[in-house]
Amino acid sequence: MHFGRHISGQFNAELESIRTHVLTMGGLVEQQLSFAMQALHKDDLELAKKVVRDDHKVNAMEVSIDEACTRIIAKRQPTAKDLRLVMAIIKTITDLERIGDVATRIARVAIEQPSTKQQKFHVSLEPLCRQAITMLHQVLDAFARMDVDAAAEVYKLDDKLDAEYEAVVRQLMTYMMEDPKNIPNILQVMWSARAIERVGDRCQNICEYIIYFVKGKDVRHLDEKAINDIL
Amino acid sequence: MHFGRHISGQFNAELESIRTHVLTMGGLVEQQLSFAMQALHKDDLELAKKVVRDDHKVNAMEVSIDEACTRIIAKRQPTAKDLRLVMAIIKTITDLERIGDVATRIARVAIEQPSTKQQKFHVSLEPLCRQAITMLHQVLDAFARMDVDAAAEVYKLDDKLDAEYEAVVRQLMTYMMEDPKNIPNILQVMWSARAIERVGDRCQNICEYIIYFVKGKDVRHLDEKAINDIL
Repeated sequence: MHFGRHISGQFNAELESIRTHVLTMGGLVEQQLSFAMQALHKDDLELAKKVVRDDHKVNAMEVSIDEACTRIIAKRQPTAKDLRLVMAIIKTITDLERIGDVATRIARVAIEQPSTKQQKFHVSLEPLCRQAITMLHQVLDAFARMDVDAAAEVYKLDDKLDAEYEAVVRQLMTYMMEDPKNIPNILQVMWSARAIERVGDRCQNICEYIIYFVKGKDVRHLDEKAINDIL
Repeated sequence: MHFGRHISGQFNAELESIRTHVLTMGGLVEQQLSFAMQALHKDDLELAKKVVRDDHKVNAMEVSIDEACTRIIAKRQPTAKDLRLVMAIIKTITDLERIGDVATRIARVAIEQPSTKQQKFHVSLEPLCRQAITMLHQVLDAFARMDVDAAAEVYKLDDKLDAEYEAVVRQLMTYMMEDPKNIPNILQVMWSARAIERVGDRCQNICEYIIYFVKGKDVRHLDEKAINDIL
């Protein structure tokens, strides 16, 4: 029994360590997104370059956490809730890595369009980006506490993000119609807006993994009512 | 020993069954993409509606294969190559499901822009979509045989898809500049083009999982030279 407990204690420590790494990765991704937004907003070329340079850190964390998860499955043969945690983590880090790519994409726009003449297009991305960062922050918080209620709250925030995105697109379309020769530049900004809007979808995915871990139900592809019934 | 072999035989049959399901899902996704392209190209509203209606089948397959994978981990405690296969499958079906979403997105454009006056914008998507379908078909073939060389070949096809995508975007930008009042409609087509281009990235992901399974190395985020060194 003692041996059994020791093993289990070690196992718990390993799971806890992976969870901590996920939160560290999440924190880095949040920072990348925040820096990318600042770089775009303040035309800060150095900061934009830093975001691009640091993307490999996010990628390396994804690979290393993924390896740790596979190792723990092979070594500890987790079942039930432990296994669900590992599965939820494997999926969560994929979404976090993609959010990291969004940060890089925004940073690239800041690098390729450094002139102040584009400023008016950039400004419109700030509230959208801020909302995406809030959503990411809150979902990481829900993940840290494995709190389904908090996850359900974050899930709903995506509607606001979508509405903001629609407003940005309408605004950018107006710029395009007014000034067709600027279409290629405005399109770059529009791609970024779309990428930011997708951050919301990825945060929703993470909400679903939290619910899967806690409730043991896969709620992907269900509508909001069906999800609420499970919560 | 006999018991051991029996267990292992059962286990193999279970793994084989999951693999078959992945290929069935892949076939369905390929069909969805192909139907969506036809619907857009031939202005076939009924076919477009069918694609949207059938998306839930793709989603349901993702959830059911995911469950089967978790069950096999809990029950059979796979290690080494068996575990890598399960991991590769879990990741592959996520990408397949997203490719299914792309098909739905294209079908929606066919539904929302049914008038023949948009035809000239649609036509330009056909070669792009055809290339994406070819890439998907070939990666599923590589997956069926777990053939790394074939996977490496498919990986390279993405450059062609990207080049075709760039050409489509340039063409659509020209339409936008010539006829600014059509910008909203052309943007819809442009989003679809981008979604199709992303199919190539997802096929590359699947190539990486095949390499991971066969070679035991995670090649995500590596450059082409580093990947070739592993192959």
